Amino acid sequence: MKNFKELLEKAQLTHEKNIAVACANESHVLLSVEKARKEGIANSILIGDKEAIYDLADSLNINLSYYKVIDEKDSTEACRIAVSLIKEGKAHMLMKGLVDTSVILKAVLDKKDGLRESNKDKVLLSHLAAFEVEGHDRIMFMSDAAMNITPTLEQKSLIIENSVFIAKKLGIKLPKVAVIAAKEKEDPKMPVTVEAAELQRMNENGIIKDCIVQGPLALDNAVSMESVEIKGIKGDVAGKADILILPDIEAANVLYKSLSYFAKAKIAGIITGATAPIILTSRADSEETKHYSIALAALL
Amino acid sequence: MKNFKELLEKAQLTHEKNIAVACANESHVLLSVEKARKEGIANSILIGDKEAIYDLADSLNINLSYYKVIDEKDSTEACRIAVSLIKEGKAHMLMKGLVDTSVILKAVLDKKDGLRESNKDKVLLSHLAAFEVEGHDRIMFMSDAAMNITPTLEQKSLIIENSVFIAKKLGIKLPKVAVIAAKEKEDPKMPVTVEAAELQRMNENGIIKDCIVQGPLALDNAVSMESVEIKGIKGDVAGKADILILPDIEAANVLYKSLSYFAKAKIAGIITGATAPIILTSRADSEETKHYSIALAALL
Repeated sequence: MKNFKELLEKAQLTHEKNIAVACANESHVLLSVEKARKEGIANSILIGDKEAIYDLADSLNINLSYYKVIDEKDSTEACRIAVSLIKEGKAHMLMKGLVDTSVILKAVLDKKDGLRESNKDKVLLSHLAAFEVEGHDRIMFMSDAAMNITPTLEQKSLIIENSVFIAKKLGIKLPKVAVIAAKEKEDPKMPVTVEAAELQRMNENGIIKDCIVQGPLALDNAVSMESVEIKGIKGDVAGKADILILPDIEAANVLYKSLSYFAKAKIAGIITGATAPIILTSRADSEETKHYSIALAALL
Repeated sequence: MKNFKELLEKAQLTHEKNIAVACANESHVLLSVEKARKEGIANSILIGDKEAIYDLADSLNINLSYYKVIDEKDSTEACRIAVSLIKEGKAHMLMKGLVDTSVILKAVLDKKDGLRESNKDKVLLSHLAAFEVEGHDRIMFMSDAAMNITPTLEQKSLIIENSVFIAKKLGIKLPKVAVIAAKEKEDPKMPVTVEAAELQRMNENGIIKDCIVQGPLALDNAVSMESVEIKGIKGDVAGKADILILPDIEAANVLYKSLSYFAKAKIAGIITGATAPIILTSRADSEETKHYSIALAALL
């Protein structure tokens, strides 16, 4: 996909998508679902303290006659209901309102009633950001800036799997995955480079499927053909990566924030790995990022 | 300092600065020292294989009559001579040419003839980048994107010391240092946040001097007042950091490359911690970065 304009246009063409909003009495959440509704991207089912939701909507000038509201004061139960709406096919994505992340994720990961892929033995939730930055002619992806602190090799392979699944859904047939380190050569003094090379080998050996993995690559060697040519780097991913896999939450979070604050990138973020996308926007995210995140989830 | 335009102008006003270039027969190095000479920023003494240097200069249309050239084919010895020129006051900064980084740094760190501060028991070389990015009204600094892979707490305090020393030389009286993590709260599950808080306490207790240290801070909370206000973060550094200290080489390298490739920042980089600045540009650095790096070193 070229850019977020195209993403929004496509999201508007997906009909009848519903968001299940757990503990919906939170102003930035209500404002973003209202914007998504007005732009024809998705409708929402609001679960939570009905009185609080109506009072808040009133103060924000949002007319709730377009919404289904389910009254449930207990937040654990509200999350369970939101998840069950998705299981029943009545909603297609989950959004966090005024509730701790751990509470909503517990409902998602519940072995019996949660949103686990039934045909997979291992489920890992991971954060995936899509971004558009000036000078690059397509949407790129990066992971994991928010969920997994120091992912193991196996967790990294699941993060790649989650990211590839989404990239393919958005039309990239064989996603190019760059495993990022501080340099492009394997170096025993830098374990991150060794692990990146190992992920490339796991892809070559068919353990990580449906994508091309190359690593280690420094960030410039992943995204800049000019840099790749100067350094004489070979490989199918170098200079044209679709997905950037960062070594840990610190490096990923720094890249995410740098894209947002320094590069003025357009960004969307979702939690992947469950049977439906999960939207966990924070107050610190811009209105634009919240909107793009819903649109991205609506397309999946 | 507001921006790199001001930095270049000030560098042009510093008279009679000399660069000692070790193993100077490298084309990008010769081109950048020639540019620095033409713009009145610094002159250079070229040490290395005299014949090779003259041949290369000839092919690049550089007239070496403006340069002192010292013939020394052995690269270890060429580095030793370059360092000794600085010790004797004949040169003021060291630049790496066609020689392994380890060889030149060995000459720098030599206990008898190197460039160690005599009144310090501990010397740590660290990379410091200065950058200017649109929307921010001053030059900021970040460390360490290139030298220290996984710095310990003590090494981080020395990295802060090195960075503060340079920031003060460039006119920031009491530099604001942000220790970056993935979030702004100390969390035992994230050792980087704990270490960041410890560095703040070391500053409060007078162990880290001449600056204000705050940590942990996510990158947005270090540089964006808007983000700081939304999150209600207190502290003298939050939102207005001069220096960003990153947790490890991966996070720092990702930030450096993101600034360069995504944010189109202007960047200069030097090695700090010795008695003179060291310029280690790589082929992958842009011409502009090489030029800014020499200008930055000339100001110190």
